[in-house]
Amino acid sequence: MNGADILCNTLLENDIDVCFANPGTSEMHFVAALDRQPRMRCVLGLFEGVVTGAADGYARMADKPAATLLHLGPGLANGIANLHNARRAGSPIVNIVGDHATYHLQYDAPLTSDIDSLARPVSHWLGRATSADTVGRQTREAIAAARQMPGQIATLILHADAAWSPAEDISSGPVPPAILRTADAERVREVSSALKSGRKTTIIATGLALRERQLDTLDRIAAATGARLMAQQANGRMQRGAGRPSVDRVPYVIQQALDAFADTEQVILIGARAPVGFFAYPGKPSQMLPQSCSVIELVAPGEDMIAAIDALGQEVGISHLQARLGERKRPDMPGGKLTPEAIAIALAHHMPANAIVCDESVSSGRDFFRSTHGAEPHDFLQLTGGAIGLGLPLATGASIACPDRKVITLQADGSGMYTVQALWTQAREALDVVTIIFANRRYQILHKELENVGAGQPGENARRMLDLDNPELNWVALASGMGVEAARAETAEGFADLLAAACKRKGPFLIEAVI
Amino acid sequence: MNGADILCNTLLENDIDVCFANPGTSEMHFVAALDRQPRMRCVLGLFEGVVTGAADGYARMADKPAATLLHLGPGLANGIANLHNARRAGSPIVNIVGDHATYHLQYDAPLTSDIDSLARPVSHWLGRATSADTVGRQTREAIAAARQMPGQIATLILHADAAWSPAEDISSGPVPPAILRTADAERVREVSSALKSGRKTTIIATGLALRERQLDTLDRIAAATGARLMAQQANGRMQRGAGRPSVDRVPYVIQQALDAFADTEQVILIGARAPVGFFAYPGKPSQMLPQSCSVIELVAPGEDMIAAIDALGQEVGISHLQARLGERKRPDMPGGKLTPEAIAIALAHHMPANAIVCDESVSSGRDFFRSTHGAEPHDFLQLTGGAIGLGLPLATGASIACPDRKVITLQADGSGMYTVQALWTQAREALDVVTIIFANRRYQILHKELENVGAGQPGENARRMLDLDNPELNWVALASGMGVEAARAETAEGFADLLAAACKRKGPFLIEAVI
Repeated sequence: MNGADILCNTLLENDIDVCFANPGTSEMHFVAALDRQPRMRCVLGLFEGVVTGAADGYARMADKPAATLLHLGPGLANGIANLHNARRAGSPIVNIVGDHATYHLQYDAPLTSDIDSLARPVSHWLGRATSADTVGRQTREAIAAARQMPGQIATLILHADAAWSPAEDISSGPVPPAILRTADAERVREVSSALKSGRKTTIIATGLALRERQLDTLDRIAAATGARLMAQQANGRMQRGAGRPSVDRVPYVIQQALDAFADTEQVILIGARAPVGFFAYPGKPSQMLPQSCSVIELVAPGEDMIAAIDALGQEVGISHLQARLGERKRPDMPGGKLTPEAIAIALAHHMPANAIVCDESVSSGRDFFRSTHGAEPHDFLQLTGGAIGLGLPLATGASIACPDRKVITLQADGSGMYTVQALWTQAREALDVVTIIFANRRYQILHKELENVGAGQPGENARRMLDLDNPELNWVALASGMGVEAARAETAEGFADLLAAACKRKGPFLIEAVI
Repeated sequence: MNGADILCNTLLENDIDVCFANPGTSEMHFVAALDRQPRMRCVLGLFEGVVTGAADGYARMADKPAATLLHLGPGLANGIANLHNARRAGSPIVNIVGDHATYHLQYDAPLTSDIDSLARPVSHWLGRATSADTVGRQTREAIAAARQMPGQIATLILHADAAWSPAEDISSGPVPPAILRTADAERVREVSSALKSGRKTTIIATGLALRERQLDTLDRIAAATGARLMAQQANGRMQRGAGRPSVDRVPYVIQQALDAFADTEQVILIGARAPVGFFAYPGKPSQMLPQSCSVIELVAPGEDMIAAIDALGQEVGISHLQARLGERKRPDMPGGKLTPEAIAIALAHHMPANAIVCDESVSSGRDFFRSTHGAEPHDFLQLTGGAIGLGLPLATGASIACPDRKVITLQADGSGMYTVQALWTQAREALDVVTIIFANRRYQILHKELENVGAGQPGENARRMLDLDNPELNWVALASGMGVEAARAETAEGFADLLAAACKRKGPFLIEAVI
């Protein structure tokens, strides 16, 4: 038994049995150890952004971490953007990053780099296993760190000689589960009083507060007190659709957000943070709340959010109320030109119950909620950190976690190209994922932003940086190049037909929706 | 005039007139400034690894920096792997990385991250422009740093408010060129004496020493003294082919490298570093040179390598000698099964004069040199840092720098997928690039490495991580999805015909070489 075997055993002993991987030479002993453990499901991504984004999607749906296997500093670097998103989503992940043998580092071989400096910005926990004797203990520490609430990113740098050297597995059993502190009862009472004060109040929730049961309780709290319930602008996972409360999100567009809070007097945060602009704009404030608005947090990190929401319900007194659940209803399907709205309505009609919707539609999907409050119940997963290139990997990981549920990806064309390699993993693993490409042939969001800058009509250089035409991407060809069946839709009717068919079959399918 | 205009003007004033870009909202004022300056050529990459790899290829061929435009921490992170390669190649690059407005950082908006920590491992110079008033000075510092010899990576973090705030351009003209120190005359004499000592000597060169004129001088020095002349294992750019000295590289495979130096008594380093293993292996040394071998460096960083080589030639006394130039000759073209060797021989036959060969063929291209010493003269660009995903972007940048020369990319399939988006940029810019995909449907190098580990036959998990079959990638479809014409070759004859045709036409073309 060597250090790599101990690492592998420790992961399995702690119910981490999926490893998203793109290994290299320095991780070859870990690969050999994984090969000796068929219980571990190894999923190859053809680029590390796929690996880490899939681990994020997996964690959001499985409520537990997967491992990733990354090759030295550059392999980690390729995965950082989606680790950034995972960090913002509160997704637990255990990264294993290979490094040279300890004694080899001093020679600064070509692939040597400062892995710690690269890992730190995306890692809540960071360790370096320099010896096979400490691999077991450090893996346990990494797992414990990843499981903190909300979920955390733990990165264990594994030196090649720590992997290949013999050692004894002295594990004393699984890592105990993370202990949640009970939210302060005084704070629960304070929030309850605030809600009953008659001031104009918005409750902003995220994380576990957006699961069905908590949403039900929060909706009743809102009904009892006249407060408005909203979800944070971007959330790791939100349960919605018919039979669940219809909850909107804080708008992305800054003026819309400012308008939404213009007369808000107090905000109750549940896992969420006080809303700020995604970006700063000249002459616009950074904070979305009026200066006079007071802010109260129901729970601090590490506190039991579910219990706190229940306690708040009791304190407010909601047992006599029913949540206001969304009815099963869909807008009429429009015909003719294919638009983002027509796509949303077609989804409202054809999404099967318990679908998982992975949204990286960027500007094209902003009105998706309006059309789908009455769709079949589904989980809605977002781009939480703004680092584009998450959608296709996220769907890949979500489908690995939930093989019996249909996954639907809403994917903008520009951001889809970032991690397009994920389609191959979907084909290899025969994942039940329908990918919808919003093919507007441009970075549409940036055209709007350029307009906001007051730059007038884009000239040659701006168009060269913001447009994806000349040549147009052929997504049907790209998908088929990676083994995913695909078709193009150019009308609302054509799209609805393709979507209906794709939702009835199993396996990966891509629709290039020309909008 | 605002900070972004000053930045743009400062770049242009210093002959930096190509900007490889993938911008986002926080860089929109810089985009607007670029739009006001049609002299700047803006080249969009659909992923930041394309942007930075293209900047590397451009620098290697133009011998001057391009600028890159990257979107915040995640945008930089996506470009780090190829910046790592550029750093190892000694390529000058000026990165402009957007960041939030200074006053917005405190709110930790979703895209906020520790950009400094991400940038430091790949940046020789790192600055943060917090005000429009300092943008000009800091850009000049970045340019000066990038131009140090060998070339350096300079990263300027540009806050959005530094870009959009008005300021006055107080530039006092172009940045003066970097001053090279003259190599110590005593050291030149010492190296000359060592060469004449009769000990078994190898000269290992890289950087500017691998350009035609220096190679000519070095070959004569080797001939005069009986020394062996080699290039470093991986080099940013090497001039070779018929009419130039035939120089081999230090082998990659560790046992071959150890054998190559087994009886070497002294090594003269010219810009190069003493050879070490690309990776460490149990029971193998890290250093390739025998313990008793002495090592002398001809030049230190910042010293004038070209003058030092000339001085060494004079000291040794080579004026009576002619360099031993390679003859124009090609091995006979084999028929039948397509092999890496058949590809190399076909290249020897069909590469036009002055082609630029960008090599990321990984294990498939190791014997390329043997067959092409007598091919038409060409520049040979390698993966210097071992971070895969460089080949397609490198070719893109090299072609932007040298639009009149044919660029040929030798690209392994596994690493090609990392930054496959570069093909779109080649199509958009109508670049004269022939891409050869070595389609062996696996990470072949890792199969070898797994064998070296002694793991025996790969099992299910190892195969799942090392093989690219099931489904096979269809490179013809992938290329056509990005607007690049492509065809598949499955025999040596078929490949040679496709290559000959591709070398005669202009514009991007991809050959999927099934080996």
